[in-house]
Amino acid sequence: MEKTSRLLYLQHQFEALKSNKLFEIFVITVIVISALLIGAKTYNLPQSVYDATVFLDYFITIFFTIEITIRFIADTNKKRFFHSFWNVFDTLIVFVSLVPVDNSEMAVVGRLIRVFRVLRMVSIIPELRILLTSLVKSLPQLGYVMLLMFIIFYIYAAIGSTLFHQINPTLWGDITISLLTLFRVMTFEDWTDVMYETMEVYSLSWIYYLTFIFLSAFAFLNMVIGIVVSVMEQEHTKARDEKLREQGLVEPSLHDLQLQIAELKSLLVDKKS
Amino acid sequence: MEKTSRLLYLQHQFEALKSNKLFEIFVITVIVISALLIGAKTYNLPQSVYDATVFLDYFITIFFTIEITIRFIADTNKKRFFHSFWNVFDTLIVFVSLVPVDNSEMAVVGRLIRVFRVLRMVSIIPELRILLTSLVKSLPQLGYVMLLMFIIFYIYAAIGSTLFHQINPTLWGDITISLLTLFRVMTFEDWTDVMYETMEVYSLSWIYYLTFIFLSAFAFLNMVIGIVVSVMEQEHTKARDEKLREQGLVEPSLHDLQLQIAELKSLLVDKKS
Amino acid sequence: MEKTSRLLYLQHQFEALKSNKLFEIFVITVIVISALLIGAKTYNLPQSVYDATVFLDYFITIFFTIEITIRFIADTNKKRFFHSFWNVFDTLIVFVSLVPVDNSEMAVVGRLIRVFRVLRMVSIIPELRILLTSLVKSLPQLGYVMLLMFIIFYIYAAIGSTLFHQINPTLWGDITISLLTLFRVMTFEDWTDVMYETMEVYSLSWIYYLTFIFLSAFAFLNMVIGIVVSVMEQEHTKARDEKLREQGLVEPSLHDLQLQIAELKSLLVDKKS
Amino acid sequence: MEKTSRLLYLQHQFEALKSNKLFEIFVITVIVISALLIGAKTYNLPQSVYDATVFLDYFITIFFTIEITIRFIADTNKKRFFHSFWNVFDTLIVFVSLVPVDNSEMAVVGRLIRVFRVLRMVSIIPELRILLTSLVKSLPQLGYVMLLMFIIFYIYAAIGSTLFHQINPTLWGDITISLLTLFRVMTFEDWTDVMYETMEVYSLSWIYYLTFIFLSAFAFLNMVIGIVVSVMEQEHTKARDEKLREQGLVEPSLHDLQLQIAELKSLLVDKKS
Repeated sequence: MEKTSRLLYLQHQFEALKSNKLFEIFVITVIVISALLIGAKTYNLPQSVYDATVFLDYFITIFFTIEITIRFIADTNKKRFFHSFWNVFDTLIVFVSLVPVDNSEMAVVGRLIRVFRVLRMVSIIPELRILLTSLVKSLPQLGYVMLLMFIIFYIYAAIGSTLFHQINPTLWGDITISLLTLFRVMTFEDWTDVMYETMEVYSLSWIYYLTFIFLSAFAFLNMVIGIVVSVMEQEHTKARDEKLREQGLVEPSLHDLQLQIAELKSLLVDKKS
Repeated sequence: MEKTSRLLYLQHQFEALKSNKLFEIFVITVIVISALLIGAKTYNLPQSVYDATVFLDYFITIFFTIEITIRFIADTNKKRFFHSFWNVFDTLIVFVSLVPVDNSEMAVVGRLIRVFRVLRMVSIIPELRILLTSLVKSLPQLGYVMLLMFIIFYIYAAIGSTLFHQINPTLWGDITISLLTLFRVMTFEDWTDVMYETMEVYSLSWIYYLTFIFLSAFAFLNMVIGIVVSVMEQEHTKARDEKLREQGLVEPSLHDLQLQIAELKSLLVDKKS
Repeated sequence: MEKTSRLLYLQHQFEALKSNKLFEIFVITVIVISALLIGAKTYNLPQSVYDATVFLDYFITIFFTIEITIRFIADTNKKRFFHSFWNVFDTLIVFVSLVPVDNSEMAVVGRLIRVFRVLRMVSIIPELRILLTSLVKSLPQLGYVMLLMFIIFYIYAAIGSTLFHQINPTLWGDITISLLTLFRVMTFEDWTDVMYETMEVYSLSWIYYLTFIFLSAFAFLNMVIGIVVSVMEQEHTKARDEKLREQGLVEPSLHDLQLQIAELKSLLVDKKS
Repeated sequence: MEKTSRLLYLQHQFEALKSNKLFEIFVITVIVISALLIGAKTYNLPQSVYDATVFLDYFITIFFTIEITIRFIADTNKKRFFHSFWNVFDTLIVFVSLVPVDNSEMAVVGRLIRVFRVLRMVSIIPELRILLTSLVKSLPQLGYVMLLMFIIFYIYAAIGSTLFHQINPTLWGDITISLLTLFRVMTFEDWTDVMYETMEVYSLSWIYYLTFIFLSAFAFLNMVIGIVVSVMEQEHTKARDEKLREQGLVEPSLHDLQLQIAELKSLLVDKKS
């Protein structure tokens, strides 16, 4: 019994701490420092500074472990804690960076994992979290245009690696390489070099490149326009809904008004006779 | 008589098969496999795997022939079957890949034709079909801007091949090559190399390139804006029409309401006197 | 007297001819042929074909002269004829190509002038004429953004030619060359080559390039958005005006209706007492 | 007493001068000349012309000093004068260019400072001032997308400099250089050269580049769409507000009308009983 009450007390204390503005600023500061640390390590540092970074690294790892523990204990519903994507995300980043990395081979992997700590910036700032969520949410509606685009890429890559395989295997060796080459053509990166090379053998191969550029640009344009239109519609719906919520009722349609006026008229005509 | 009834029975069976969800998934699977097969063939495969692909190729060809036959028999109206663009499209792809390709020269052509089987992905997924149809439908409204753009390109290509013909025949040799060079300039692909070369002879030729870039960019921008505006208008009209259909009647205009209120007033005034 | 009536008769005849659908198609055909001829001349033609093009050239020149004369005579108001931009434009192109070009030096100029005959395509097709007019009309509203952009370019070009003059005179020699180099940087064409060169002397010069790219991209983006917004507003106004014209009257505002209902109420209350 | 009245008289005189159209045109002319002078100095000028520019430079410096003094004296509220950003801006530019620059080292700095005189063009033309103010105002709303984009850049730069440090130190040496390289990749400037180099060691490093391009392009697209939507909303609100101001009252909602009609009805029903 005493144990539970002590735990409850701890929970309350931790909840207060978690909601504390100063604590929040301190957490953000540590995240920013950990981000700067990652950047600093890419420079050639003198030994003394390097030792300091190692120490700071330990401190950040421990601090993040404590912070996530506090947040877990502070949560009244332990199950729900892991239902939140951001909690799982934070926990994963913290736990993975706890794994001891010894031999030099894995040291690079360890450093890479620490890089993802920067992403905690996203999880701690609510505005960024909302932004990212809305970005991810706008992805599915692009689904079919993306599929269509992939089909266009795939067909052209198949044709490309069939026809141009002999001309330049580093660009058209197999379908994966061809897909990469086509992406390069789509970004207009030295695409004429690729074209002039194949035009020496197949002088009409410019048709291949021009149709590809037109098709992919056209599909891409439609994708962009699709997003613009859907975003605007969402904004419009949101604005209208907000207006209705403000008024606390549903705006009648012009037709509703027409019906009401007709009713008035019938009342008047009724009375007259 | 018996023959007809047997045919009718077959038709019903096939129609049931065609509408079967499992059969549909199976067809999509075969199309995806045929697409992967085309990709796989661009790699250097060991003989045993290559033999398997040849076998799989035969299987897919036969399967597609059977599938199109089933769809044809299942259709109650044989004439209408070929009125659908996608049916004609599927039949064409299937029949062309039935043509036996023997000598090595034509083997490449045969493989290219098989590539277009990937397009059956578009014909089998309704969403992609709708998307492609709407893309194609948005093309005609671009007609005149495209024509204007072509005129701009043609005039600049004529000027380019007249003035710069001597400087670099590979870029400005005749009007076709000049058009290709101008397209390259429009995509900003090493356009300064092209310009610096001609500037050595005609030091003012930067005017030629800059006016061309401005004109084509401006026409292109107008094209894009034109599409955006027309797509939005369509969406708007669609949204309004849907709203009306929901209400099952035509929304009255504010003017209609005004007329009705005026009528009410005349009734009231009438009664008063 | 007889002369005037004969002229009037001629005018009527020519007006009929000008409005004739077949004649119009014939004119367009000749324009297209003249465009193709210009293209054909950029190829190395055999002597016989070349002679034919020279003959065709004479024919087109004469035909255009006759056509513009017919249009001039057919016009009832001679003064107004030259008030139309497109008439002046056509007359100019025709007259300039009448100037005999003899020596080889001027032959290039003569050929270039003939290129502008392709622009007659724009003047003969009404849709293209409307399109071009609307394009030209949308230019002035870009005025101030263009000026702002030019100021940005000018300041950066002045800084560039002051600082980098010694490093690479071909790119930063004077302010005109610097403006061209900055336009190149703006199109992202090998801009890193330009940057890496100056970074060897001024290691912080990446600030110069990055701020320039951000500023010009930002100004450009605002220009595009400005056009989109103004085009949409125009479309919106046009749509509303058309709706009003259809109804033959001005749509009342909700406030007008409110006033009318208030009037009704006063009538009712009035009667009651 | 006399002194104050003389000052007041001067103030009135100067205010009249400042508002004078001719004076304004003269100021713009001097600014344009100072801009041209800056451009002219980047050319190799003969000694006589150079001497003239030095003289002109003195004249412009003195003229600007007098002009700002006139504007300061003309202002009735001296304190408010420095509350305007543009007044502070003009004063700063004028005062800085008054600092005598002697030794050759600083001569470049002196010339650079004079370049910013061109910016006075912005401060003198009201339309440009409004444009720039609205550009600057639209920046904060981009804040969070910019932060998100920087986080993406930072993470990729950290990964890049960790993994590719050994392959090419000039491109991936430390995190600052990596950020620059990534910006280059984002502008598609020879990005495949960067990629092919690292692919020789890490053959899967194309994933790094492709995900980066997709993420940054996607974030950038969202930024652009965000601006478009917010600009349109502003325009819409502005248009509605203007309409309301014209009418001098608030447009009633459809619900207001409904309430009024209901009131009418109750009046009618009331009377009936």
